[in-house]
Amino acid sequence: MIILGVDPGTAITGYGLVSFHGNRFSTVEYNCIKTPAKMEPADRLLILYRELEKILLKYRPDRMAVEKLFFNTNARTALAVGQARGVVLLLGAMAGLRVYEYTPLEVKQAVVGYGRAEKEQVQYMVKAILCLPEIPRPDDVADALAVAICHAHYGNGVG
Amino acid sequence: MIILGVDPGTAITGYGLVSFHGNRFSTVEYNCIKTPAKMEPADRLLILYRELEKILLKYRPDRMAVEKLFFNTNARTALAVGQARGVVLLLGAMAGLRVYEYTPLEVKQAVVGYGRAEKEQVQYMVKAILCLPEIPRPDDVADALAVAICHAHYGNGVG
Repeated sequence: MIILGVDPGTAITGYGLVSFHGNRFSTVEYNCIKTPAKMEPADRLLILYRELEKILLKYRPDRMAVEKLFFNTNARTALAVGQARGVVLLLGAMAGLRVYEYTPLEVKQAVVGYGRAEKEQVQYMVKAILCLPEIPRPDDVADALAVAICHAHYGNGVG
Repeated sequence: MIILGVDPGTAITGYGLVSFHGNRFSTVEYNCIKTPAKMEPADRLLILYRELEKILLKYRPDRMAVEKLFFNTNARTALAVGQARGVVLLLGAMAGLRVYEYTPLEVKQAVVGYGRAEKEQVQYMVKAILCLPEIPRPDDVADALAVAICHAHYGNGVG
């Protein structure tokens, strides 16, 4: 079972692929897709689409997990994140994946065991759970791995 | 010059294709793409993608015009619209179209000549300018035609 966690954004989209078998994790790949700030929004979304499509074709994950957006953010941020998120969800549907969404609270609960954990605690636990040499950077990558771990934890259709 | 105006939404996306030659408009097609409310967001976006892709392949517009979102809306609405908008912009970039964005004020100014016009005035003028038998329904379709007219009016790369 390979789970693809994604933290979508127009400027940076973090992604992380983790394999989960018999209650054990291994890390397949993690990185981020960056798009140039000077480019038109539509062209930035096209870069995101093409790069994430390559990852889906290469690793053929079984599930996709994405964090639900906070609704206390402002509308401008929500629109920009929404546009990137639309492209990510579309790719999931195109690949025939079911896309699971988790709130930040669920992610923290699953990774740290405490829904109000600090960002640093989540990042530390991502490193520990996946036995990584260091905390993944930028934050978007650690967040993507955290939501993938969260999906395994809640066991939606896993195994 | 065929202009595709789009009013994106997850539930309903309005679209309108207008031809603009020598200062004269003719209407090519207008309608809307609806997706079932019960369906998962990712699957709804896939329907939107496939339907709008068909329209792009059939009519091969030269330009795409989309309304800029109001930022006084709430974050939940902005996220949902953003997701649909991301798919629409992506398709524009895939088709090699430049995507133009206009504020509601610019659209009203272009269609009615008055930036604070009521929705009904805009709809009435869309019907009049395009010589339609009646006001296009639902509102999303009239809005899509209005932004296409707006693009012709501002003349960005037209003609």
